[in-house]
Amino acid sequence: MAGSIIGNIFKISTWGESHGKALGVTIDGCPAGICLCEDDIQRLLDRRRPGVSQFTTQRNEADRCEILSGVYDGKTTGTPISIIVWNKDQMSGDYDILRDVYRPGHADLCFDTKFGIRDHRGGGRSSGRETIGRVAAGAVAEKMLSSLGICFETYVKSIGDIDSDPDNIDISFASENDLVMADKEAYERAKEYVKALMAEMDSAGGTVRCTVKGVPAGIGEPALLKLDAVIAQNVMSIGAVKAVEIGDGKATSMLRGSENNDSFRVDNDKVYKKSNHSGGILGGISDGSDIIVTASFKPTPSIARPQETIDRFGNETSLEIKGRHDPLIPPRAAVVVESMTALAIADMILMNMSSKMDNLLKIYGNDTN
Amino acid sequence: MAGSIIGNIFKISTWGESHGKALGVTIDGCPAGICLCEDDIQRLLDRRRPGVSQFTTQRNEADRCEILSGVYDGKTTGTPISIIVWNKDQMSGDYDILRDVYRPGHADLCFDTKFGIRDHRGGGRSSGRETIGRVAAGAVAEKMLSSLGICFETYVKSIGDIDSDPDNIDISFASENDLVMADKEAYERAKEYVKALMAEMDSAGGTVRCTVKGVPAGIGEPALLKLDAVIAQNVMSIGAVKAVEIGDGKATSMLRGSENNDSFRVDNDKVYKKSNHSGGILGGISDGSDIIVTASFKPTPSIARPQETIDRFGNETSLEIKGRHDPLIPPRAAVVVESMTALAIADMILMNMSSKMDNLLKIYGNDTN
Amino acid sequence: MAGSIIGNIFKISTWGESHGKALGVTIDGCPAGICLCEDDIQRLLDRRRPGVSQFTTQRNEADRCEILSGVYDGKTTGTPISIIVWNKDQMSGDYDILRDVYRPGHADLCFDTKFGIRDHRGGGRSSGRETIGRVAAGAVAEKMLSSLGICFETYVKSIGDIDSDPDNIDISFASENDLVMADKEAYERAKEYVKALMAEMDSAGGTVRCTVKGVPAGIGEPALLKLDAVIAQNVMSIGAVKAVEIGDGKATSMLRGSENNDSFRVDNDKVYKKSNHSGGILGGISDGSDIIVTASFKPTPSIARPQETIDRFGNETSLEIKGRHDPLIPPRAAVVVESMTALAIADMILMNMSSKMDNLLKIYGNDTN
Amino acid sequence: MAGSIIGNIFKISTWGESHGKALGVTIDGCPAGICLCEDDIQRLLDRRRPGVSQFTTQRNEADRCEILSGVYDGKTTGTPISIIVWNKDQMSGDYDILRDVYRPGHADLCFDTKFGIRDHRGGGRSSGRETIGRVAAGAVAEKMLSSLGICFETYVKSIGDIDSDPDNIDISFASENDLVMADKEAYERAKEYVKALMAEMDSAGGTVRCTVKGVPAGIGEPALLKLDAVIAQNVMSIGAVKAVEIGDGKATSMLRGSENNDSFRVDNDKVYKKSNHSGGILGGISDGSDIIVTASFKPTPSIARPQETIDRFGNETSLEIKGRHDPLIPPRAAVVVESMTALAIADMILMNMSSKMDNLLKIYGNDTN
Repeated sequence: MAGSIIGNIFKISTWGESHGKALGVTIDGCPAGICLCEDDIQRLLDRRRPGVSQFTTQRNEADRCEILSGVYDGKTTGTPISIIVWNKDQMSGDYDILRDVYRPGHADLCFDTKFGIRDHRGGGRSSGRETIGRVAAGAVAEKMLSSLGICFETYVKSIGDIDSDPDNIDISFASENDLVMADKEAYERAKEYVKALMAEMDSAGGTVRCTVKGVPAGIGEPALLKLDAVIAQNVMSIGAVKAVEIGDGKATSMLRGSENNDSFRVDNDKVYKKSNHSGGILGGISDGSDIIVTASFKPTPSIARPQETIDRFGNETSLEIKGRHDPLIPPRAAVVVESMTALAIADMILMNMSSKMDNLLKIYGNDTN
Repeated sequence: MAGSIIGNIFKISTWGESHGKALGVTIDGCPAGICLCEDDIQRLLDRRRPGVSQFTTQRNEADRCEILSGVYDGKTTGTPISIIVWNKDQMSGDYDILRDVYRPGHADLCFDTKFGIRDHRGGGRSSGRETIGRVAAGAVAEKMLSSLGICFETYVKSIGDIDSDPDNIDISFASENDLVMADKEAYERAKEYVKALMAEMDSAGGTVRCTVKGVPAGIGEPALLKLDAVIAQNVMSIGAVKAVEIGDGKATSMLRGSENNDSFRVDNDKVYKKSNHSGGILGGISDGSDIIVTASFKPTPSIARPQETIDRFGNETSLEIKGRHDPLIPPRAAVVVESMTALAIADMILMNMSSKMDNLLKIYGNDTN
Repeated sequence: MAGSIIGNIFKISTWGESHGKALGVTIDGCPAGICLCEDDIQRLLDRRRPGVSQFTTQRNEADRCEILSGVYDGKTTGTPISIIVWNKDQMSGDYDILRDVYRPGHADLCFDTKFGIRDHRGGGRSSGRETIGRVAAGAVAEKMLSSLGICFETYVKSIGDIDSDPDNIDISFASENDLVMADKEAYERAKEYVKALMAEMDSAGGTVRCTVKGVPAGIGEPALLKLDAVIAQNVMSIGAVKAVEIGDGKATSMLRGSENNDSFRVDNDKVYKKSNHSGGILGGISDGSDIIVTASFKPTPSIARPQETIDRFGNETSLEIKGRHDPLIPPRAAVVVESMTALAIADMILMNMSSKMDNLLKIYGNDTN
Repeated sequence: MAGSIIGNIFKISTWGESHGKALGVTIDGCPAGICLCEDDIQRLLDRRRPGVSQFTTQRNEADRCEILSGVYDGKTTGTPISIIVWNKDQMSGDYDILRDVYRPGHADLCFDTKFGIRDHRGGGRSSGRETIGRVAAGAVAEKMLSSLGICFETYVKSIGDIDSDPDNIDISFASENDLVMADKEAYERAKEYVKALMAEMDSAGGTVRCTVKGVPAGIGEPALLKLDAVIAQNVMSIGAVKAVEIGDGKATSMLRGSENNDSFRVDNDKVYKKSNHSGGILGGISDGSDIIVTASFKPTPSIARPQETIDRFGNETSLEIKGRHDPLIPPRAAVVVESMTALAIADMILMNMSSKMDNLLKIYGNDTN
């Protein structure tokens, strides 16, 4: 088991359980000299906070982060940045019934088989709270990338079969509504859809789109650590994600080459593409246009309806899940998709620095001087 | 740049260009004691061989592999396994025009930006021939997994908008037709579709489905190296893949929780699921049912039609690509998807061995004896 | 910069500065099912505690550790184990003078050159307090290894040119004296030597020997991750270590082959070696006999005598270091050498589990059943 | 088992056995734009060639290398560089006796225990020929480093107890004598010593010193991937090395702080140290002065004298090793120490590029432009 550390240069190590004492992350490999304070991180953490609307779990956690190391005089020092968030509102009693029963759509059975022991309280390590470390690290990655002019736009693209209209996207609206959608008209319909499902003790799925602006061409390592491959791993590792797409994604399989190829053109000595079906990545390397990532989330598996299942002794039983749960995952997970994408790009931006001798000479000078 | 090595324990290091002397792979971390010969590898390599049908490039390469190390007396020794395939039928002259022009939908511009130099002949390292090393390594992974009762079924699921009927899958048919489809009726329609596109000097996209049978429950490392995440990285790193889905994938975003959750049941003391929307993975860990992976391929970007593009000096120009190209990628890429999935599973199978002390005691015994 | 994470399967990620809020470590990849409590860790941490004798810095830190995750019901769960120790007795004012001046024998200049910023307080990340995370992780590694019958004996072998007599080693004495020596006679002389140096405002060097008993044959990965190589990296990464030796180490360079080779013999069906010049490792793999590691420590660079140096503006200056410092490093560093050796062995023990198919079949069974 | 790949950015993957078809290495992560041809590599390989003097094995191998990928138009392209050397003069029959008998001082028993199978011919993977891949990779690392003004001076420092006089070092002499010593007077004595041992069918040990000039200050990653730690791992992984020292190494344990500290001074605005006991590394980071590494080699374990040992069935037996062997290892291993040091420095030079935001801005510019 060594599954909570990723990255090649910009590495993160996350830890913590839903009902443990705390959760956190350590970032190793963040460059020195970045202005960083707790507010930079809190801003992103607040986007995944529970208890803020009718569409999120009622668990009440302020989720205030604390930086424990790696920052001095308001700047990163190049040493590991440790960030912690304390758990407060655990109601572990709610979960007693889950000590022995395997929830359908959850990893309970898998954890027991794998480890022979499981912290069942609140889902333990497989809880959505595990993403706190990801988002805290993602916030640091975004702070680093913003110095290079790279920024992120993320919203819930669809809920159930209610999809956003690409011509109707208002990204500022996404930060104003409780479903984090960017198409006001789709939002209204989605709200009704989710409410209806909640009334039926059921849950909804949806998709999240993250667009990254300002990534220079040349980022990504052929052939096996392509930029899209690293993004795919990072995003697929988010709980409940069942599909990752780049650019037009699955739809490209239905296009012809002549439709799907993006033409290169030049305007004022600047290269651009007439379209961006590729989602900003060609051959696994950024092409200078917007990078577009879409993640599909399955419906929340925790539902209050009675479900057929088994317990850990191998007996068939029925289960009604009572705890506090989100009726759909995408609104709170949008910032997680953004964070995991940011981590992939931050790492690959650092990896690319050694791609050519010209870059080494920029840093170290050369011997003929 | 360090993009041609992946894996945590079962590691592969691939190398080689389309028109270089040879291509190959070294596998480090393969357990000792596996029966392995060149035929085991050749069988998979033949599934991606060029020049075998009307639907593949006419480049004529036998692609015979040679094992250079790591096997003694017909068995793996635990030391690195080096496998090589020599290039024979390079026609580099065909590519002279591509020295300076950037092909739409290809990585030419990205490579030049990243490295400042590019072997343009046949696509260099971004050619489909790069997958030889992946497939050779995948064959070794499959040989290891077969000893544990794990096997693979892979076919082209859709071409353009012609999709297979799940009730009409005959996996043996997939090895008999030049489009590697498993639904005979869909094959007939797809064949006409591709021929029509070829006549129009255009190309097609499609999807590949890989099903893995026999993976025990418990494989995959939470939270960041989940089994689906590692599969996603591996499969997304294949050229032209734009989406990776697990189980019902994107479609789950449109389901309700009560529809999507798979019920656990027991039959003859054996746990099973009444459905498999999850594609065999829950919380990033295998659940004991079939693992189902689907990859979407964009249409081949190399088409003979005139296309708008630029050259490396920043001038706009037009391009007609004449070389030898596949009119669609999925038939030859099916075995690549399978290989990359096999590599992910092999690595995670080895990773999981240290998940609990019981396993250590099985290998090392304990101090109380 | 990605220098605070090591390990292949049993991975550790350490963080924290001397005068920051706290220090800690996260262990990722520790098997589930190990009994673990804070006392297991505290026992080792206490061996590196400051302020306990005339020969250690007078900084007063209880250094109580707290486990924040990864342990449930008294057992490891297979998820990341986060351990924290809060800083208490920082006297940062003592270090104001060091903001601008580079201490000889320290990394101040190197940090400034590398990162362009430096937390000078108490040495920041290059302080000896950085080893808290290492020792906490080492304690977990030792707990795991003890279940396999592997244990450690560590002592200060020499101080200055006062060396222990191999025929006079009493390992229990090492835990009773403030120099952690195992030869009582050598201890008496060393004590006088160190006191004399302290009176002269000077410092001493020394060596630490760690012997590991019970490691089975077969541990270590040829050719580049040999067991001795991984131990060497781990031990050389401890501050002030300037040499690492395995077995007879440097002295073997002066022997003949016929003197240095250890004969294999058999007694009661058990293989043994008549001597152990090799220090338990042959060809980078454990041979079943005791593993013997020796680390040489330079004298503490912080001394109160006036020294020639420069400041960060490039001016020559003189420096007298007043803070609280150990007059020699080995007594408190002995447990650090042991911890870093334990981490190397724990990781390689897990790595070796996948060395042969027989082992896989022990864990997963096979398909013919 | 995953022991033949190392490196964080500049990664190498070595493969091959003594009596297999070939040996080689793949380098992944070498920057593009370095002039590289086979002669650059051959020059270093020739320094480890067998059969060239009375003091080396009489196995006759030209060891000509071939570059198979990653170089185009005489320059590295940033893609993996695969280098191969074919075996020619295998005389495997010489080794039949070793199929079942365990040579003292060798890894035979360890390999059998670990893997359950062993290619005994010529030592298989644990042969000195395994270093071909290391040296080929080291040559590429040195080529890269030479563009930054970094160069290497390596010689055999001592043989048995005959040590070089530091005041009598003539580095050019080292390339002219068959013991690769740099002190002419020591060479004469060592020659007689080795000849006498050879007459007695015995073997000698010795030490190799490698000095690296021109490494800028700031290279190395605290706290666990310190420059000296990475060098220690790389050098200790060479067969027969039993000790690694940095700077004054073991001797520093006998000095006082006031003797061992190197004073910083300034001359013409350039910082220098008045002495270099530290061997160019402070706190794990290069300090701008020469980096000094010393490796101690045990005597060649293969000797023709009768030795007590056992066979793989557990029977005691006696063994006289007849094959072709070096009477001492350091002369041919000098270039291996240099190569492994070069690989460590190359990797850490690339790692350091991302140490501070200033460096990122040098490569990527910033958003305010």
